[in-house]
Amino acid sequence: MKNTFGNSIAVTIFGESHGQAIGAVIDGICPGIEINDEFISSQLTKRRPSGPTDTKRREKDEYKILSGVFEGKATGTPIAIIIPNEDTRSGDYKRGIPRPSHADYTASVKYHGYEDYRGGGHFSGRVTAALVAVGGILIPALNKLGIKIGTHILECAGVRDKAFENIEKEIEKINSISFPTISDQAKMLDEIERARLDSDSVGGILESAIIGMPAGVGEPWFDSVESIISHALFSIGAVKGVEFGRGFELARMRGSQANDPIAYENGKIITKTNNNGGINGGITNSMPIIVKCAIKPTPSIALEQESVDLEKMENTKLEIKGRHDPAIVRRACVVVDSVLAICVSDMLAQRYGTDVFLKGFDK
Amino acid sequence: MKNTFGNSIAVTIFGESHGQAIGAVIDGICPGIEINDEFISSQLTKRRPSGPTDTKRREKDEYKILSGVFEGKATGTPIAIIIPNEDTRSGDYKRGIPRPSHADYTASVKYHGYEDYRGGGHFSGRVTAALVAVGGILIPALNKLGIKIGTHILECAGVRDKAFENIEKEIEKINSISFPTISDQAKMLDEIERARLDSDSVGGILESAIIGMPAGVGEPWFDSVESIISHALFSIGAVKGVEFGRGFELARMRGSQANDPIAYENGKIITKTNNNGGINGGITNSMPIIVKCAIKPTPSIALEQESVDLEKMENTKLEIKGRHDPAIVRRACVVVDSVLAICVSDMLAQRYGTDVFLKGFDK
Amino acid sequence: MKNTFGNSIAVTIFGESHGQAIGAVIDGICPGIEINDEFISSQLTKRRPSGPTDTKRREKDEYKILSGVFEGKATGTPIAIIIPNEDTRSGDYKRGIPRPSHADYTASVKYHGYEDYRGGGHFSGRVTAALVAVGGILIPALNKLGIKIGTHILECAGVRDKAFENIEKEIEKINSISFPTISDQAKMLDEIERARLDSDSVGGILESAIIGMPAGVGEPWFDSVESIISHALFSIGAVKGVEFGRGFELARMRGSQANDPIAYENGKIITKTNNNGGINGGITNSMPIIVKCAIKPTPSIALEQESVDLEKMENTKLEIKGRHDPAIVRRACVVVDSVLAICVSDMLAQRYGTDVFLKGFDK
Amino acid sequence: MKNTFGNSIAVTIFGESHGQAIGAVIDGICPGIEINDEFISSQLTKRRPSGPTDTKRREKDEYKILSGVFEGKATGTPIAIIIPNEDTRSGDYKRGIPRPSHADYTASVKYHGYEDYRGGGHFSGRVTAALVAVGGILIPALNKLGIKIGTHILECAGVRDKAFENIEKEIEKINSISFPTISDQAKMLDEIERARLDSDSVGGILESAIIGMPAGVGEPWFDSVESIISHALFSIGAVKGVEFGRGFELARMRGSQANDPIAYENGKIITKTNNNGGINGGITNSMPIIVKCAIKPTPSIALEQESVDLEKMENTKLEIKGRHDPAIVRRACVVVDSVLAICVSDMLAQRYGTDVFLKGFDK
Repeated sequence: MKNTFGNSIAVTIFGESHGQAIGAVIDGICPGIEINDEFISSQLTKRRPSGPTDTKRREKDEYKILSGVFEGKATGTPIAIIIPNEDTRSGDYKRGIPRPSHADYTASVKYHGYEDYRGGGHFSGRVTAALVAVGGILIPALNKLGIKIGTHILECAGVRDKAFENIEKEIEKINSISFPTISDQAKMLDEIERARLDSDSVGGILESAIIGMPAGVGEPWFDSVESIISHALFSIGAVKGVEFGRGFELARMRGSQANDPIAYENGKIITKTNNNGGINGGITNSMPIIVKCAIKPTPSIALEQESVDLEKMENTKLEIKGRHDPAIVRRACVVVDSVLAICVSDMLAQRYGTDVFLKGFDK
Repeated sequence: MKNTFGNSIAVTIFGESHGQAIGAVIDGICPGIEINDEFISSQLTKRRPSGPTDTKRREKDEYKILSGVFEGKATGTPIAIIIPNEDTRSGDYKRGIPRPSHADYTASVKYHGYEDYRGGGHFSGRVTAALVAVGGILIPALNKLGIKIGTHILECAGVRDKAFENIEKEIEKINSISFPTISDQAKMLDEIERARLDSDSVGGILESAIIGMPAGVGEPWFDSVESIISHALFSIGAVKGVEFGRGFELARMRGSQANDPIAYENGKIITKTNNNGGINGGITNSMPIIVKCAIKPTPSIALEQESVDLEKMENTKLEIKGRHDPAIVRRACVVVDSVLAICVSDMLAQRYGTDVFLKGFDK
Repeated sequence: MKNTFGNSIAVTIFGESHGQAIGAVIDGICPGIEINDEFISSQLTKRRPSGPTDTKRREKDEYKILSGVFEGKATGTPIAIIIPNEDTRSGDYKRGIPRPSHADYTASVKYHGYEDYRGGGHFSGRVTAALVAVGGILIPALNKLGIKIGTHILECAGVRDKAFENIEKEIEKINSISFPTISDQAKMLDEIERARLDSDSVGGILESAIIGMPAGVGEPWFDSVESIISHALFSIGAVKGVEFGRGFELARMRGSQANDPIAYENGKIITKTNNNGGINGGITNSMPIIVKCAIKPTPSIALEQESVDLEKMENTKLEIKGRHDPAIVRRACVVVDSVLAICVSDMLAQRYGTDVFLKGFDK
Repeated sequence: MKNTFGNSIAVTIFGESHGQAIGAVIDGICPGIEINDEFISSQLTKRRPSGPTDTKRREKDEYKILSGVFEGKATGTPIAIIIPNEDTRSGDYKRGIPRPSHADYTASVKYHGYEDYRGGGHFSGRVTAALVAVGGILIPALNKLGIKIGTHILECAGVRDKAFENIEKEIEKINSISFPTISDQAKMLDEIERARLDSDSVGGILESAIIGMPAGVGEPWFDSVESIISHALFSIGAVKGVEFGRGFELARMRGSQANDPIAYENGKIITKTNNNGGINGGITNSMPIIVKCAIKPTPSIALEQESVDLEKMENTKLEIKGRHDPAIVRRACVVVDSVLAICVSDMLAQRYGTDVFLKGFDK
């Protein structure tokens, strides 16, 4: 469904980097969910470029809710949120010479030259602000159900953070700081800065955890939890790999190492290890859902690159001006959290009904 | 949509390991597609356990087409294919003690104990035979449009195959042999055998290529080519990681290395490298689509494992009898090809209309 | 989604009049639903041609359940049901001269001549047997939730039955007889017989009621209860009109007559009249859902008709041989009941979750 | 999908009567479609209350396009349109006493009291302005493909207009006047005025025609043209009946009268009559699509009515203040046209691909 995602709870996104506004419509939301403006703003702030690792473009991201909220709570009918664009400098962009590893060329073929090419148009990372606003509504509601989500930069520019271990506490920590890593990351910041000074960029790996999910959510086959979450994560332009639990490492393990022993402890069925990332046969097993995604280096770099002048149809060199991020890993964390919140909310609503946020579920 | 996948072309699957039959319904197929029984059979043979790396269960996989085919061609209305189950030994399974890293426990929660637990029921890898039958119909039709698909075992049991390089030729090779690797893999087979002798199992990494796709197919955001393909691949129970192009390696590269230079060569726009795996901004760029998936080791192993007796609610030991594969990587290749064929066919039909297989498309 | 209908509970149908089998896949069904073979058979018997008002084609309609049922109950995974075709006389059909008001011509354009033209192929009313089998599974489960469905022939061949009045009792009656009318209908049968003797056919109006639905089910706008039910009913080839409550009569009323006064009676909110057929703003109000559909006369008649020879592209006369129904209203009632059961089951599962048939709902 | 409709082209609507704004997102639109602001405005003007038959609420309906349009043309990415609400008088509404035949009661059950009850909230007819804006974009694009749509008031307040006969010319006429009837309707206006003076309201029947559709569009069974169009039309709150061609009249005809003779004339396959309204077996046959819908009388009337005080749970009387339409048939015509434009555009895009508006189709 193109720009709409989800079944019981569906999110539709729209907007371009240099258009009037970006935004989202959330449909199927449980009535009564409280809209916490402060939280939404703080989530948008996390995504907003602000520090040395980010683009110099500065947007206030003042969102407006146009519908679906009444007396501070979700009514149950569609919530439309818009975030006007303000700090746009379209002059930095010109049509006709596609930026390598951007969508410029593919968009020009798909849309036959009618696309809004300024700043990547609809393909711009700016559209993720709409996802973050949606997450800003859903995350507090999930928290009330006992479900918590957190994402940290597991690796960037060759520097590695600790993996999740004491998840609940670590989620709390990474959600409260602006550069979300579990251990101190001065070195990571240094390496990003070095890339910036080289007019270059770096990528990274994000690790996310979702805790508090009941067992039995998801579907076999086409709507496996992995299918749904990967579908949503790969919507983010920079994501080029997604793995659950030990992911690609499992390919190098034997079954006897990879299998998670099942145990009955403290009145609960658990697994002693969590190599499968909380999902068996596409369905949650109540262990933490662990998912990692590979973020490619920001393709907009100031170094000269090779491209083609599509009007003259000849090879040419390209220097990208504009304002860009040497690393988007920091800003991507809250986007990933938001995307995961959308997936999880929808899966809960499908299993437990549209009122799940009002009624809760039996664990 | 649970057991249905696709928009313009939609596939619905059903069946259990030890039920009457497994099968699939393909809807939205272009009329006039020739049904090549020999090819369908040969694809099912590839998936069927046969050699030393596979389970000892032997099914003839004699499929029946119940509808949607007339005078040897697709009519355009739904094709229902069924594959009866024959060699079932349900006595090998017992309810109540979930096998680690299988869906047994999650299914029992989701379905409240009503699930068919024999041989994993609907979660069994046997259901992939239905996907292979669907692929057996779509792949020749894609070939006629100039689109070719191939999957090889890039890594298994610590042994690595060559990566794709001369893709068209390599696709031809791996599609013509029963253990699909590009270079000789006696060592890989030895290692699998060693795992089998240890009553253990191994996983691996599959690398797939799709060539001949026109540029401009796919969607930004939620229906990106990566979203659709990963959604479908993660439907396969054993897949725990998916990456496109250089995938997780991109996380360790700089933008200047990762970006694919664009060039005009021989009357075509190409990229000089293909680190993005043929997809930019979710849309094809006409370069080969490269996707890798991590296959976890077969969870059914003969070694004793820890689990819980769900009736007594106490910890116990479990020895899995039954007949199982020490490695499913070989058999998984044709499943992945089939899944990719479904994705690609649907994306083409959405862009070019339901008659694309009759009318073709402008490259 | 073409041959798939429903969200939480989705039904996919397949098959042709003269193919191997027709069938359906039901996905998303609540685990634990009992499969009542006797009831399914008796529903198929109601649809099966048997008496003087029906075609002479005689099918045993012996269905087989291939998957999704274990120990007599739904497992929660897809149920595939097939009904083999047996009494087929393809010689009665020839390609090239489309029967008026049938799908022959439109199918030949849509499917470019690849369609299975024998007996209307996939467009044949025979495919409704698959819907009836699905209804045969869902209706007893709905009954357990206190929801009852019934359809009678409100009008046929100029003869009118009584409208619903004492609905619960009338549903019981019409569901227990083979020619479902509320009052005695000797005259209606005579008129149908007269049409048959004239080698002609007649249509009619069916009136259906669904009682026991809780208030609050459905959606505003695009997924209104009316939208969903009409979508499903217009799937049936012969249906050319659908109205809810007083329907087209409302167009001739004033608001003061048409509005249903709301009242609090015996601890319940009710409406004193039910001109809106149990639905306000697309959402159930707990009053009976009343829906009527117009059934056009069977287009297959033995009288000579005008058509075109599509091969020679010239006007010609056509006499339809084959075996046809002078009136399908009797057989259509159980089809409509089944379609309504699918709609209602899906709406309940969307609102109350996939386990609604196990857990029930608060009225 | 609740507030989203369509597959290849999907429309999502949002907003409440007394909220900030109503609006719509159109996704999947063919790039290059010209945005004709004058036409969009003139369509909104048609829907806007203006004359004696309409509510006294006066909105400017100044829409803003937030995304998806660049240099006056659709880019192919989502178009978001919003229409701010201005002339709202929320004081006229109070929670707790549901208006008969409105969605007030059903909404309060569905949304557990969290709904925005002012002016019917999301259920308000005001939301149809968003549909009209969408139609304002699609209709000129359809016209360029040779497809024309028109709707007139076939009947209102007991007064009947002529039915379509010379369709192309009549579409032109009714689309150019503010009270769309084919013949002069002074009497109809008088009767509406009489209802208004009685503090009452009237309903009516609308007849729509779509000409220029190629044969072969649509699907058998669940996505029949009738299914799709009725689904969309029943989204409109006031619609309680939908029929195609001769609709309910067919129930009273014999097959020999009802069947449309097929003929080859002037190089085209046509039918001599069009009792089936341009659709056979769910698929277009190139004849005009004729659809009628029953509009119930506006439920908001000034006369005293019976209802229940939901807080005290006791029967009470209700007098609706506010500003209401004695007849909405006039304003509903352009809404129906818009809804039909959405359906037809989506069906064309599904069959011929997303670029159909750029590339056209073979008739």
